[in-house]
Amino acid sequence: METKIVTINLDARAYDIFIGHSLLFRIGDFIPQNLEGRNVFIVTDKNVEPYAARVRSLIADSGAGICDLKVLPAGEKTKSFKHAQEVCTWMLAGGINRDSLVLAIGGGVIGDLTGFCASIVMRGVPYVQVPTTLLSQVDSSVGGKTGINTAQGKNLVGSFYQPTAVIADIETLETLPRRELLSGYAEVVKYGLIEDAGFFTWLETNGTRVCNLDQDAVSHVLEASCKAKARVVQADELEHGRRALLNLGHTFGHALESEAGYNGTLLHGEAVSIGIVMAFDLSYRMGMCSQADVERVEQHLSAMGLPTRAAAIEDLNTSVDALVAAMGHDKKIKNGKLTFVLVSGIGEAFLSDDVASDLVRDVLRESLGGETKTTQKGIKERWKSAFSSL
Amino acid sequence: METKIVTINLDARAYDIFIGHSLLFRIGDFIPQNLEGRNVFIVTDKNVEPYAARVRSLIADSGAGICDLKVLPAGEKTKSFKHAQEVCTWMLAGGINRDSLVLAIGGGVIGDLTGFCASIVMRGVPYVQVPTTLLSQVDSSVGGKTGINTAQGKNLVGSFYQPTAVIADIETLETLPRRELLSGYAEVVKYGLIEDAGFFTWLETNGTRVCNLDQDAVSHVLEASCKAKARVVQADELEHGRRALLNLGHTFGHALESEAGYNGTLLHGEAVSIGIVMAFDLSYRMGMCSQADVERVEQHLSAMGLPTRAAAIEDLNTSVDALVAAMGHDKKIKNGKLTFVLVSGIGEAFLSDDVASDLVRDVLRESLGGETKTTQKGIKERWKSAFSSL
Repeated sequence: METKIVTINLDARAYDIFIGHSLLFRIGDFIPQNLEGRNVFIVTDKNVEPYAARVRSLIADSGAGICDLKVLPAGEKTKSFKHAQEVCTWMLAGGINRDSLVLAIGGGVIGDLTGFCASIVMRGVPYVQVPTTLLSQVDSSVGGKTGINTAQGKNLVGSFYQPTAVIADIETLETLPRRELLSGYAEVVKYGLIEDAGFFTWLETNGTRVCNLDQDAVSHVLEASCKAKARVVQADELEHGRRALLNLGHTFGHALESEAGYNGTLLHGEAVSIGIVMAFDLSYRMGMCSQADVERVEQHLSAMGLPTRAAAIEDLNTSVDALVAAMGHDKKIKNGKLTFVLVSGIGEAFLSDDVASDLVRDVLRESLGGETKTTQKGIKERWKSAFSSL
Repeated sequence: METKIVTINLDARAYDIFIGHSLLFRIGDFIPQNLEGRNVFIVTDKNVEPYAARVRSLIADSGAGICDLKVLPAGEKTKSFKHAQEVCTWMLAGGINRDSLVLAIGGGVIGDLTGFCASIVMRGVPYVQVPTTLLSQVDSSVGGKTGINTAQGKNLVGSFYQPTAVIADIETLETLPRRELLSGYAEVVKYGLIEDAGFFTWLETNGTRVCNLDQDAVSHVLEASCKAKARVVQADELEHGRRALLNLGHTFGHALESEAGYNGTLLHGEAVSIGIVMAFDLSYRMGMCSQADVERVEQHLSAMGLPTRAAAIEDLNTSVDALVAAMGHDKKIKNGKLTFVLVSGIGEAFLSDDVASDLVRDVLRESLGGETKTTQKGIKERWKSAFSSL
């Protein structure tokens, strides 16, 4: 299949996203730097080590200087100060300099951590992202946000640092657990809901093809998602305003993840799926969008097998108060007010810092299952059956 | 005395440096942010805690939100991953957000560490530098380089991140140990040597007034130094080329510091003083500048009480080989070649990556005292007497 290219236009920091199948077999074609004599530092995790080993051997054969590989444990806990220090020290001990190249091969955890390390080692060394999950291919690898987690929450320490290329190889999705794939699909849906109702409609028809890894469908989704993200990032690289739209569902979602404890109970995209429904529910309660929109969104996410209610999270031991407190750590607080991403309909997201806290609490209470509505019960059961089939 | 203002023109990241006496008593006049309701996080060290406490009480009285103070141990060892994590965690636990303000009150260690933390917490929170040493007032607080040290060397992890203001209060120099003051003076001399021969001549006449803290002389030196640094930084913020001129004496100096072990035996400015003489010596051996220039530079540094030879460093247990290896960790390595700052005369520095390694070794050997020349012996004795009078 044809390799697609989406360009992120950020002047001196512009770069290309390459989308296709089996790209890693000719990775040298997509790395913008001449590898001759250049030292390369590859960071990956246990889960995708075979891809990283393949890339390493190709790069070593290409006349590069040293080509070192660091294999980290898989999972969110790797996005820590401890591992950032470990990776930086490893790079420095290996003799990294500003002419070196850093390669991140993995999902969002590896991409965020490695990008952060690349941004601070020697005050910045070029890096290339090789995202190997749907989530990272459509979201975290694009746009230059890097970060690590702290006890206070996710991504509270990090940088804005653009890669010099992103290489999204659809082949790597074939070994991705289905639950991880669905988690990434939630971010795909998000792009449709923010500003592209037509794309959401396309997903309603073609979502199953995507999740069954039909190559053309996946390629289309990657291209559309990266283009959507590019539009927003180009308009507001440092998140002074518009870029925050990409956080649709994330203010709620991050609070859920924080309460769930990053132990694999709740994947990021699952939290986003639930958070998106909360954002639509909040918008509906504020009179901004119709109930039909809320139901249509919840219906599609649920039909694909994604959770849409906090009540569906196994062993979640939290409360409305605890979730509100967790939301208080959100980076998007301005003048003491949390900025919410609301919608006036599908494909029509906007920012608001004028949200009544009692409505937020109502939304949280409902999602946690404190109230019962006809639709809710139905959804929960649909979700349960979808989830058990994974 | 009049408050002087030097503006660093970096478009959206432009900021002012305020230079004057007793500025901390009216710090609110110089902080560009409206403090009303804003949360402020002050980082300082044990040595200058009284200044920080004064600032904290003024800010707390000004209607700011919370105003927290973090007092760290003084000394180079504080510029570590460990303390960066501690400071970030402290800020996050205190509820920092992008509307908050970070204040660094102290010398280069506090400024570099705090600036680094401000650049990565929430992917960037505004910060103001209040440098309290001559070294930080003329150098490290200006230009946006932040950083921490690792086992491999100094400042090998960090960021380019501009403050929103720099407040250089001459009063704080009055409690600075004289040896620290002289250390800062070495960086002042550097600006004259890079591109302003007239300023170097002025220093030859007025250096003693500066080191005796004559207010007009210090004010002039701060303004001239900040303007000199501003010219270079504005032309090359991210150190792709010209900015490296500011490293005159630093490639040699960093190697000396690394070998001396950052334990207070050798201050940064002392290492730079020795490194400057090495850079001039190297330039002379390459036929770039006259021996008279080398002697004139060494004469002035020595007359002010600064060391000019590695042999003068107490208990330094190193070798030419060890220093060459330490230089190999320099960030300015391009294509496997170290870039040196050389001179074709006083006030005429330039970059070169075409330096014969045997000449570098000759320079190191001579500075370590492996060879004896008439001039060297005289200098060493002059330096010894100047140093013992501190």
